[in-house]
Order: sequence, then C-alpha cells, then structure tokens
Amino acid sequence: MSINAKIAELTNKLESTTIERRRDFHRHAEAGWTEFRTASIVADQLTKLGYKVQVGDEVVDSENMMGVPASSELSNQASRAIEQGANPEWVNKMEGGKTGVMGIMEFNKPGPTIALRFDLDANDANEAETNEHRPYSEKFNSINKGAMHACGHDGHTAVGLAVAEIIAELKGELRGTIKFIFQPAEEGVRGAKAMVAKGIVDDVDYLLGMHFGFQLKKTGQIACNVTGFLATSKYDATFTGVPAHAGAAPEVGRNALLAAAAAVLNLHAIPRHSEGTSRINVGTMQAGSGRNVIAPKAVIKLETRGGSSTINKFMSDEAYRIINSAATMHDVKVEITEMGGAAGCSNSPELADDLAKVAEKLGIFNEIVPECDFGASEDCSYFMERVQEKGGQAAYTLIGAGLAAGHHDSCFDFDENALAMAVRFVSTAATDLLLR
Amino acid sequence: MSINAKIAELTNKLESTTIERRRDFHRHAEAGWTEFRTASIVADQLTKLGYKVQVGDEVVDSENMMGVPASSELSNQASRAIEQGANPEWVNKMEGGKTGVMGIMEFNKPGPTIALRFDLDANDANEAETNEHRPYSEKFNSINKGAMHACGHDGHTAVGLAVAEIIAELKGELRGTIKFIFQPAEEGVRGAKAMVAKGIVDDVDYLLGMHFGFQLKKTGQIACNVTGFLATSKYDATFTGVPAHAGAAPEVGRNALLAAAAAVLNLHAIPRHSEGTSRINVGTMQAGSGRNVIAPKAVIKLETRGGSSTINKFMSDEAYRIINSAATMHDVKVEITEMGGAAGCSNSPELADDLAKVAEKLGIFNEIVPECDFGASEDCSYFMERVQEKGGQAAYTLIGAGLAAGHHDSCFDFDENALAMAVRFVSTAATDLLLR
Amino acid sequence: MSINAKIAELTNKLESTTIERRRDFHRHAEAGWTEFRTASIVADQLTKLGYKVQVGDEVVDSENMMGVPASSELSNQASRAIEQGANPEWVNKMEGGKTGVMGIMEFNKPGPTIALRFDLDANDANEAETNEHRPYSEKFNSINKGAMHACGHDGHTAVGLAVAEIIAELKGELRGTIKFIFQPAEEGVRGAKAMVAKGIVDDVDYLLGMHFGFQLKKTGQIACNVTGFLATSKYDATFTGVPAHAGAAPEVGRNALLAAAAAVLNLHAIPRHSEGTSRINVGTMQAGSGRNVIAPKAVIKLETRGGSSTINKFMSDEAYRIINSAATMHDVKVEITEMGGAAGCSNSPELADDLAKVAEKLGIFNEIVPECDFGASEDCSYFMERVQEKGGQAAYTLIGAGLAAGHHDSCFDFDENALAMAVRFVSTAATDLLLR
Amino acid sequence: MSINAKIAELTNKLESTTIERRRDFHRHAEAGWTEFRTASIVADQLTKLGYKVQVGDEVVDSENMMGVPASSELSNQASRAIEQGANPEWVNKMEGGKTGVMGIMEFNKPGPTIALRFDLDANDANEAETNEHRPYSEKFNSINKGAMHACGHDGHTAVGLAVAEIIAELKGELRGTIKFIFQPAEEGVRGAKAMVAKGIVDDVDYLLGMHFGFQLKKTGQIACNVTGFLATSKYDATFTGVPAHAGAAPEVGRNALLAAAAAVLNLHAIPRHSEGTSRINVGTMQAGSGRNVIAPKAVIKLETRGGSSTINKFMSDEAYRIINSAATMHDVKVEITEMGGAAGCSNSPELADDLAKVAEKLGIFNEIVPECDFGASEDCSYFMERVQEKGGQAAYTLIGAGLAAGHHDSCFDFDENALAMAVRFVSTAATDLLLR
Repeated sequence: MSINAKIAELTNKLESTTIERRRDFHRHAEAGWTEFRTASIVADQLTKLGYKVQVGDEVVDSENMMGVPASSELSNQASRAIEQGANPEWVNKMEGGKTGVMGIMEFNKPGPTIALRFDLDANDANEAETNEHRPYSEKFNSINKGAMHACGHDGHTAVGLAVAEIIAELKGELRGTIKFIFQPAEEGVRGAKAMVAKGIVDDVDYLLGMHFGFQLKKTGQIACNVTGFLATSKYDATFTGVPAHAGAAPEVGRNALLAAAAAVLNLHAIPRHSEGTSRINVGTMQAGSGRNVIAPKAVIKLETRGGSSTINKFMSDEAYRIINSAATMHDVKVEITEMGGAAGCSNSPELADDLAKVAEKLGIFNEIVPECDFGASEDCSYFMERVQEKGGQAAYTLIGAGLAAGHHDSCFDFDENALAMAVRFVSTAATDLLLR
Repeated sequence: MSINAKIAELTNKLESTTIERRRDFHRHAEAGWTEFRTASIVADQLTKLGYKVQVGDEVVDSENMMGVPASSELSNQASRAIEQGANPEWVNKMEGGKTGVMGIMEFNKPGPTIALRFDLDANDANEAETNEHRPYSEKFNSINKGAMHACGHDGHTAVGLAVAEIIAELKGELRGTIKFIFQPAEEGVRGAKAMVAKGIVDDVDYLLGMHFGFQLKKTGQIACNVTGFLATSKYDATFTGVPAHAGAAPEVGRNALLAAAAAVLNLHAIPRHSEGTSRINVGTMQAGSGRNVIAPKAVIKLETRGGSSTINKFMSDEAYRIINSAATMHDVKVEITEMGGAAGCSNSPELADDLAKVAEKLGIFNEIVPECDFGASEDCSYFMERVQEKGGQAAYTLIGAGLAAGHHDSCFDFDENALAMAVRFVSTAATDLLLR
Repeated sequence: MSINAKIAELTNKLESTTIERRRDFHRHAEAGWTEFRTASIVADQLTKLGYKVQVGDEVVDSENMMGVPASSELSNQASRAIEQGANPEWVNKMEGGKTGVMGIMEFNKPGPTIALRFDLDANDANEAETNEHRPYSEKFNSINKGAMHACGHDGHTAVGLAVAEIIAELKGELRGTIKFIFQPAEEGVRGAKAMVAKGIVDDVDYLLGMHFGFQLKKTGQIACNVTGFLATSKYDATFTGVPAHAGAAPEVGRNALLAAAAAVLNLHAIPRHSEGTSRINVGTMQAGSGRNVIAPKAVIKLETRGGSSTINKFMSDEAYRIINSAATMHDVKVEITEMGGAAGCSNSPELADDLAKVAEKLGIFNEIVPECDFGASEDCSYFMERVQEKGGQAAYTLIGAGLAAGHHDSCFDFDENALAMAVRFVSTAATDLLLR
Repeated sequence: MSINAKIAELTNKLESTTIERRRDFHRHAEAGWTEFRTASIVADQLTKLGYKVQVGDEVVDSENMMGVPASSELSNQASRAIEQGANPEWVNKMEGGKTGVMGIMEFNKPGPTIALRFDLDANDANEAETNEHRPYSEKFNSINKGAMHACGHDGHTAVGLAVAEIIAELKGELRGTIKFIFQPAEEGVRGAKAMVAKGIVDDVDYLLGMHFGFQLKKTGQIACNVTGFLATSKYDATFTGVPAHAGAAPEVGRNALLAAAAAVLNLHAIPRHSEGTSRINVGTMQAGSGRNVIAPKAVIKLETRGGSSTINKFMSDEAYRIINSAATMHDVKVEITEMGGAAGCSNSPELADDLAKVAEKLGIFNEIVPECDFGASEDCSYFMERVQEKGGQAAYTLIGAGLAAGHHDSCFDFDENALAMAVRFVSTAATDLLLR
C-alpha cells in the first residue's frame, strides 16, 4: 500500500478521535498564555507517540513574550487547568505562562527538516448559550468564563495531534526530521515571537502552517498560495498625569486624558504610505477618575499594520514619536508596552505551487483557490519570515470550512468535516517534503 | 431667661445626641438619591417634634432629578435601608429615589417665612480602614461599601435635627413660618433643582444654608459672606458609531473614539470669557471594544462652570455644539444627558451682614472671616437663586472645623466640637429672623 | 513609398520647426485658462492646414471650468497675449478663459473617429535664470513672470501641431475622422472636465494622450500601458468667523483659524480605504488678521485622491462632512469650492497592446516599458473615462525624455530629441487606427 | 502768581502749537522702531528747551528690542524720515531702529526724581480717505502708506513736548530731577522692555504714564486709579518641515502645517488659571506651498496674557512646551521668537489717590472715574513694574477724549480739546511731585 493510501486510511481511523479532541479543547477553552491544560494534553500525547517533547523555557523566550497576563491570573489559571485534568508536571514546567510545546522526531535516514505549526489558544469572549449554537446544544461549549474557541484553534490543535500520530505510524518510511510546534497566544499575535526567538526554526527547511476558514467559507476549498500577511504591532500606552480639582485649580493638574486625546487624533493622521497598505487604530481608551477631576491617567490600546514589515515599522516609529510627544505636550508621563506583533510576509511561491499539486492529487477538494490575499495579520508570519531568511521555504494554507458565524463571533462554529481533510492534506504534504 | 440663653442651654443639652446622630449617619452612609434610611430617620424625628412632614413626590419633582441611579440599584438600596432600620412607610413614599424631606412649622403670630437647608448624602467612596482614621478606630466607619461621608453632610443633617428640636421647644415665642429642608444628592449637584422645581421655596423670605470646613479649616472660624458660587452643568455624552475590522475594512467603521477625542480637544479650547471665571473639564472617557476594532462607542463625562449662570450657559452652549459637531464630523450619533447642575450666586449682602453680627454677638467664634470667595459649586445655589429672584434674601455660611484630611478624601473627618457651634449659630440666626 | 516611410520623412522635415515652436511656447509661457497666445497660434495653424477649428464656447463648457482666475486677471492676460502676437479674433472668442481648441478633419472614406489630446498650459512658477539652465542660456526662457513651462506641455503642443501637419499631408490616404484636442489648464487638473462636458469625445472610438518624462527619464524609452491614474478632487474651503479682541472679549469672536485647524487634523485622520490607495492633503492655510484678534477668516487648499473614482468619492465625501462640521463646531461659516479634479482610470488593455506593437515596429525606441503604474493624477483621465464609458478605447503614452530637473522644478528642461520620436510615434499610431 | 496759575496760562499759550504738532505727527505717522522723524523732532525740541538729551544706544538696549523690522526696512524708513525733515544727526544715532529719546533736567534744589513716559509710534494700518474722516478732510491724514496714528500716540507725544516746555519755563521754582521718556514701538508691546533694560528708571521715585480714550470716551473724564494691566507675551513660531508630493510619496514629507494645526488646538486647550484672568490666541497662520505638496513651512503668530505676570508666565511656559512638542510630534523643526511683551501691574494706590486729588483740584474734569480695570496690555507696565520693584510709585492715567471710532480703526480720531486738559493735568501732577 502506498504511503498516501496509508495516510488516507489512518485519517479515517482517527477522524472521530480528532472530533472528540476538538470538542474537549473547545469545552476547556483557554486564553493566550494560559493554555496549561491544552498544552499538557498535547505534551502527554506527543510523549506517548515517541516524540522528544520540549515545553516552557526550552521553547519560549520569556524576554519576547508579549501581552502576558498578570502573575496572579497565571497561577489562578494553572490551578484551574490542573482541576480540569492537566498534568501538573507539565504545568510546572510552563510556569510564567510559557505554554508552548514542541515535539521532535528524527528519522533514521538523512533528509530535510520540516516544521508544522499549530496554535493552541482561545479568544477572550463569552460563548453564546443558545440552542442554535451547536457547541451549546451538543454540550461542548466552553465552561471557562471569558474564554471561547471562536477562531478554530481547537480544531488546529486536534489536527496537529492526528498528524503527529500518522507521522509516528509511518516513521519507518520517512527521512530527515519533523518538528511539531504548538504555539500559545496567537490571538493578539503575542506568542510566535517568543518561540522564534528561541531559534527553534533556525534549522528548518520547510515550514507549514494552516488555518480553517477566513476567506474560505466552504468545506472543500483550499488555498495554498496565501500572500499579503500584514505586518502589525500592538501597543498599550499609559499616560500618567497629576489630578487636580477641575473647578478650583485646573492649572495644577496635568491632564492625561487630554494628552491621550491629542495622541489619538494625531495617530490617525499619520500619513499614508505610498509603497503599500498601512493601518493605524486606537481601539480603546480608558481615562480619568471623575468628572470634576483633571484626569490623572489614560490608557489607550492601539495597533499599526503595514503591507510589509518596512511599512509597519514606519507606522510604528511614527506612533511612538506621536505618543511620546503628546505626553510631553501636556506635561504627563507615558509608558508604551509592546503587546503583540507579526511580520509581513507571503508564502514561498515554489512551496505554494508544490502544495497546490498535493491538494490536486488528493482529489478531496472541490476548489483550489489561486493566490489568496490574506489582508490581515497572523503571527505564524514570524516563523515564516525566519525560515525564509535562513534560506528555507514556508507556506500557510487556508482550509475551507463552513462557518456558523464569523471568526471571533460568540456564535462561531465550523464544519467538523474539514478536520479530516486538513489531517490528510497536512500529513501528505509533510511526508512528501520529508521524502524529497 | 432670654431666648438666646435658652438656645445656649438647649444646644448644650443636645450636644451628645447630635454627635451620636452624626456617627449613626456616618456609619450608615448613603449615596445620592439612596438616602432612604437617613431621610426616614429625619422624617420620623421631625414628625415627633410636631412638624408637618413632606417627602417624595411632595417635595421632589421627578422631571428635574439628575444623575439618578438605575432602578434596580434604587430598589437594592431601599431594601438595604430597611434592613438597617429605615421606616418602610417613609421608604415607600420615597420610591424612585425621591429622598427629599421637608418639615414645616407655622407659629401662632404672623411673621416672615424662613427656610433652613441641609444636605443628606454621602460620597461614592470607600472609607479608610486604618487605626489613624478615627471613624474606624472608634467604630463608626461606614458599613455600606462604596458610600462614605467624606464631606460632612452627616454633620449637617445632625445639626438640622438639633436646630429643629430647639425651634420646636421655642415655638411659643416665635412668629411666622419655618421650613427645614433636607436635600438629597448634593454630591454631583444633582438634587436641589428637583426640590426647587416643586416651588417649596417660592414663598421664602430668608433662606440659610451651611457647610463645615472648606476654606475654614479651624474650629472657631465662621464666614457669613460667601460669594462666587460657580454655576455648573454636568453632562454625559455617549457617542455611538459602527464597528469594523481595523485591518480589513477601516473605511466601513464609524469611529466613536475618534469623535470623542476630537470633542475633548475642542471642548478644552472653548474661549475664555472676559466677564469672569469659566471652566471646562472632560473628566473621564471610556471608549472602544478592542484594539483591532474601529471603536463603536465612547462615553465622556464632562462639566462646565461659570462665575455666573450666564457664563456657564455660554460654556454649556458651546459644549453642546462642539459635542454634536464632533459626532457629525465622524458620522456617529451622540446623546447628551444632563447629570447635574448648580447656579452661580452669592450671599445677599444685607443678610450676610446680619449673620456676621449674630456670629459676633454669640462670642463663640475666634475669627469671623470677611468675604469668602467660594470658587466652587454647591447646588444650595439653586435654592438661593430662587429665593433672591422672588425678592427674598439668602445666605450660605461656612463654619470652621478642624479636618483630618481634605474633603472627599477617604480619610476625611472633622472636629465634632464644631457641631454645637453650628447648632447654636443657626438656631440663633433663625430665631432672630423669625422675630423680625 | 509606404505611409510609414512618408511619416518618417515628414517627421524629419518638421523637426526643426517643432523645436522652434516648442521654444516659442516656452518663452511665452501661459498659465491655465490664460493660454490665449498659445491657443490662437494653434488655431491659426490648424486653420491653415485645413482643419475645421472650434474654440471658446464651442469646446469649453463654462459651468464645468474649475479654478478659473479672476476676470481682471483674465483680461490682463488677454491683452498681454495680444501684445505678444496672439490673433485678437481668436482671443475674442476665448473670452472668460475658454482657451480650448479643437481641429477636426473628416476623410473621404468612412472609418473610425480618433482623437488626439494635448495640453497647452504652463505652471505657476518663476523660471530659473542661471546659465546652467539651457532655456536661459539659449534665451528661450519665459518672459512672463510667474509662468513657466516646467512640465513639458510646450513640447506636447508642438508635437500636436507637427502631427496635425503630417496627417493633413496624408489625408488622401486616410479614412474616418480625426480630432486634435488642445486642452487648457491641465495643471491643477482644471481643464479637461469642461471640454468633456461639451460632448466632444462622445463619438470617439480611439483616444490617445501623451506626456514626456515622468517615470521615463531617458530619451528612447516608451510606455504604452499606463495604469493607475489616481482619481482626485481639489477644493478650497473658506471659513468665515467673527473677529474680536483676543484680550478684551475672546468669547465674542468666532474663530475661523481654530475651525480650520480642527478641520486639518480630522481631515488627515480620515480612515484608510481597504480597497486601494487613498490620499488626503491640506497643502496650504492662510488665516487671521492679527495676533491679538480672534481670526475672522481662514482659507485652506486641499486635495483628495483615490486608486479609483469610488475611493476618491469616499475621501471627498468624508472631507466635505469634516469641513462642514468643523465650521459648525466653532460656529463659523464655510464655503467649499471645487478647484479641480480627475478621474481614476487605466489604459484600455487592447489598445495599449496595439500601441506597444507600433512602438516596436518603429524601431526607434530602446526600451518599451511594460505596465507602468502612474500613481498620480492627470485630467486626460476624464477624456479616457468618457471614451471608455461610451464603448471606445483610450490610452495614454509616456515618452521618455532626458530631464534636466524634476517636473515642476524651476530648472526643468527636457531633451528635445524626444520631440521627433513623439511626432513619429503618434502619427503612426493615429494613421494605423484610422486605417483599421 | 501761583505755580498752578502759571501752568494754566502756559497751557493756554501752547494749545495751538500742541494741536499743530499732533497733526504734524499724524501726517507723518511712523510705525514702531521707525519713528525716526518723530523722535528727532522730539530730540531737537528737548535740546532747544535745555534738556540733556539721550537717544539710540544710550536709552535702548538692543538685546531687548522685540519685533524689530528687517534692516532693509529700517534703512528705507530712515531715508524716508530724512526726506520728510528728520535731523540726520539724530537719525544716525538711532541706527538699528533705536528711536527712543530721553530728556533729563536736574533742578537746583534736591528733591525726588520723577519720570513722565509718552509713546511715539503709529499703527500698521492704512488711514481712511473719506471726507467723514476729519484728518483726511482737514488734510493731516498720513502720507506714509501702511502707517496711521489710530491710537492717539501722536497726541501723547505732542502733550509730552508741551509739558516739557512748561517744566522748562518753571525750572527756577522746582526741585529734584525730571526725565521725559519718549518710547518707540508701544504697539505690539515691543519697545518698553529695551528702555527699562537700560536702567533709565532705576532711580525714579514717581513715574507717570498717560493715554487718551480707551474706556473713557468722553472729553472731560479722567481715571487716575488704573488697575489690571494684563501681562502679555507675543510670539512668532516658524515650523519647518520637508516637502513631498502628497500623491506620490506622502510618507516622505514632514508636515509643518499639520504640526502647526496640532499646536493651535492644544494651545487653545491650555487650562484656565484659578488665580485670575488668562488668555491665549493664535491670531494668524500662514502655511504651505501648494495644494499637492506636504507643507514644508508654517508660521503662527500668537499671544498669551495673564491677570498677573505669574499667570502670563504659566501661559507662556505651557505655550512653549506645546509648540515644541507639536513640532516633535510631526518631526519638524520649530523656532519661537519673542515679538513683544508687557508686565501685569496696577497703579500704586497712594499715588493714584494723590493724582485724583490733583484732578479734582484743577476743576477742569467733569467726571473722575474711580478704579478702572484696564483689562488689556500696555508696555508702560514694564516701566511701572520696575519703579515699583525699586521702591518707587507709578501710575498710569486715562484721559477722556471723544472718539470718532474705536482705537486701531482706520477712522480713529480724537477730540483735540483733550490735549490741553492732558497738558495741564500732567504738568500740575509733575510739579506737585517735584515739590514734595
């Protein structure tokens, strides 16, 4: 039996397990940097399959973690995860929110190093509790308040585990090395940078990422040439002024709200960039302590984007200068914290072509979408950029799936038929590359 | 025995009761429009003393109530008050937060109508729980979370009840009519307008108000000629836009945060007024739903002030136009709600002189401060303005009191020796006026 | 002799005349809507060649003229032109600045209608008077203060006259109809709309426009597939407030400068458009009458652009709303005048291909540049858009020319060797199309 | 004959000369720092009367001159003045615009030092040329384009010369020392600082200043207790950015217009000051080079004011910081130049009382206005502040005069009957002080 036929068979065999796993992850949704339960299940399973497993400090660089919750929140979540069945040994190693996991398998014959990247985290959202929402009516809706898998990462993780099982089954026939990377905190593009900084993909020849849905809203579609990942940076800026009674002594105050408002207007007025897409958004502001008090504090959350990392850097440099000047202008202090980021990039064209051929060969997809302009940000781009910089190739595949509602919606759900399609496609693509 | 000697004696007799009452009110601090317990104790006591008592709809005009809590909060607070000993009969009549109380006594002989105004409410604050804070160490600190008497209104109410008792004792010797007005929701200047709107001071010849502390931080001081009450208006403005993904389709959004930021800058740029003091402050802003979403909502809390009602009207008219235009500018909707207000006014000079003579005559004050520029807002001004408009005279007296910390501070406390001084001064001033 | 050989010969014969004409136009540079001398020379020459000539009201719709100088300026310029040799008969017909000219020739056999469009006007600039500047050292620099041909339109007009002469020579061999359109006021994109509005290209099957230089800075280059003309709108906004003494009565003023400043900031903060390029610029502001006076007047000059007419309309609608709201915000009046505009468009692909073949066939160009993204605005786009809307084809060709300095620079000059190349290319392209 | 009777007689004798001088100065109006003719006539006359005369460097400190015209303008004006009869010797000494003049006379007996200060300059305005305007119909309207005495300084200077003549006549009867100070460039409050900086009033016991009109619009009025001079500072700020094509490469530009607009909004949003009047005005903006160019330059003219020098310093410090931060915010450079200034001050109360008694004694005034709140700025305040700091007394007197139109209006004119009143009052006040 050919290796592809074996993959087809193994995929079938694993389909119900994959659905179960996806539902289990969905029910125990965990937000970025708190995926203690999900990550420890992954680590246990990879260990069982014979992978060399690395977690915590081994794969996550604490200096480059962005948007990490407060330590009290982290320890609450760790306890919650253990109560919900996480293996305390792994949780211990993931201290400080370092919930990244990598499983490595070297095959007996020399060959390329390939990496498959999946994301683990849920969104900060409360899941809909209506009977129209299948996860609720079929009782796998999230039991963790404020966390919900509304972007399909539960499915990605389940696919990753199935592919890991198939590859382990086929290990006698393969060459080279494979790395399964399970990344925390993709939401807010906070997690990839810290794993890349550990150098874990510096030796990788081919890197594959995947995502359900987005522009591909029908099961049976696939897009192998995804381009136009927007580079992005996410910042929080905290302005600190001096309170004063607004009636009795306004001149004594140092107005943080006014500084933030001045920043907002001028940030949105950053010039357009002639070389491509640019974006700026101040999404939220929380400011002030009382109507009759000169506001002593203001916090804005903002993001910049660019059609390339260069354009994003332009936007980000402008934003820094404007925020700092707005603070000086109103004689208040400001602290800017980087909360997330992603690189601008596109699939390696050659690898994109190869993957399209795999998709075609499999015959399970109705529609192979040609070049797909992503037009959004995903921190898989950090992995891709690093691999491409080091001379390797990288590609991100969108796998179509019928959607119950848009991504990040409290009614989000996807067609689980797409799970097996993804397992089969990724397994086949990976083995093809390993056998080069 | 002269009437003044009797007042001195009665004041002495009532001193310890007055301190006890002040501490009881302090312990059961109630924020504006929720003074169900304080007001029902006042109503019970006035009834017992023989006053004709009016509460709720009789003295508070619901159309003119500003900054009223949500009805669920009101009913929670009513239940809480009853648990803490409020007379349910009164609480019933105060439905909807109409916690104003008036006690009226007509004397046998004809004479002027005078009104004494006291305020009932506590601040929205959590009281300090440290041993340095006397209310805590002596166990009369607030048991109601989020409410604290940090401005001395507990003392004002206790003084009012003592004066009411003295006047009742002396009724055989007096002429005319006296009205004791206990006003809710002075904090945020939300309550006076609704009582004035009921016409309860339209027939008043002399109105007296009082406050402990402010510029008079030593027990033994008194200021009878208070001027320069700033007129003020308090507004909440809610901007409603349209959310959109800030990366994928920014042009589809209608940015409420940007509209609010534009409003803030332009509000603070309202021109100075050549005829006197003007003020503007946007004290708080809460805006947006997420970093990567064009903000669909923004709420700002602001206030204007003016050295006169005319100047405040100028500021307020400008503010309305600017807020509405900022909304139009960014194609969002806005709703502006009036949350509080006070008139600009000053003591009637003749009455101020008369009160200074009373203070001097009593010989209990170390220092009679001449003209005192208030420079802040107090909605007693609505009562004063109405009385003055109708041809009467009105005055607000500051009574010195040693302070543990500034007004509205979580460690605020005042020297209780000032209570008896206030009781004696107000009683004497009131009887003097009634006997004219 | 083939028609193409004849064109080559005629081009050679006309080369020195063409250079002379270009220099004569250069020396008598005339800004937009005041090209009385240039246009009357064109009209005289076309008449002499046997064309039916239309000027003034016949080809320019006064309702759609944008950015026209004051009538006193127009009459000064008309007198100046006559002094400099303009035929007064034509100048009379061009009253009100209607300096457009069209020459029409119908051939004996039926065939397509083609139009060739050239622009007449100079820039508002003072020409460099240094020996390094060839027009100065060779004494054909502009004698008209404030007007200078810094964009090569002098060359375009000279090319047009040469082509008109060649076509007239060859008339016996041609079919269909040809229209030579000489457009005023291309600078500031002010003139095309008014000629298009007259319907003069409604019956045109093929329209050709041309420009020297831009991205093609070497003689010998040509680009036949020019795309990405940015749609644009140009506006002047005049804010009118009320002056007041800034010290004595600031509240009485209505501040036009402040309104304009608020407009500027919010205009630059118009959101990016996800469907393509967008631009906004407030290029100038003139405001106020004195340091100590609340500014009674402010004038801003702005422009919007868009990768498509739709995007430009979005920008322009936003700009209108923001400017009007900024006026309302500061209680001043505002008047917005449209000063110029151009459509967004691209060459018709089929015609572009055909022209590239002509260029190749001629063998006089070193480099045929493939698709060239224009990335700027040119009101030839209005002609092109109209022809394409009516089912015809239109194309704009860039013809390379060595440049002494950038376009619009006071030292601008171009390699006159490009003139003959343009004459031969346009003549050949036109005859090819007429013989279809 | 008493000294006061002699003053009355001399005043009468000099009345027609005073009117003639006033008209001569009016006809030859000279703007600030270019009063070469006026100042040299003053210097000639003082010399003739026996005063020791100082001009130029002796009385004007070039470091502290503000808002001085360009040197080419100064030399044009110097030539113009000489043509109009100025003594070239004085003009030579006034090089660089140092047009201040002081005449000193020491009397034989010891006594106090008193100073009288008058201002010389005209406004930057074109005088009305209508028959309703008396200076025009009576042919003494300004022959100097762009300069007009629209604030009565022509009268002040004429009064100063008459008083100097009277004092010289009476010198045998007087004690102490008198200084006549003729100050340039009061308009724009540019001149006093440079004379004060020379120390010329450091030894002065009593300083008197005067002005016709303002709040006193009727001949026969006088106000001796003028208070509430607003401190003020005048600045020009020039922002320098980098131009760029607004369509082709907006991100390359550094936008000076946007920086200036951001400065304007935030300047107007400087908080009110609780201790007294504050003012801010950006009166003019000139920005940009073309509609489609990112503006490389912007100039704003602004002023701050304060009820005291402290408040003005607060406003001015805020303004500096905001302007500098706005430049940094948009990555442009800015240069701030001080163009004028005046101190905040009030008349010395004792001297004001004494002057009121003089006015009463004379019996020539219908109405002696009590405390008059000036509410504007005058740089006589610098002289007054210095004298008061050094322990002396200073007072500024307003002398009523019927006005044809408001100050600074192109139709301004005043009732010349007020001239003699001023001469007699100032002479009497000065002799009274010298005889103390």
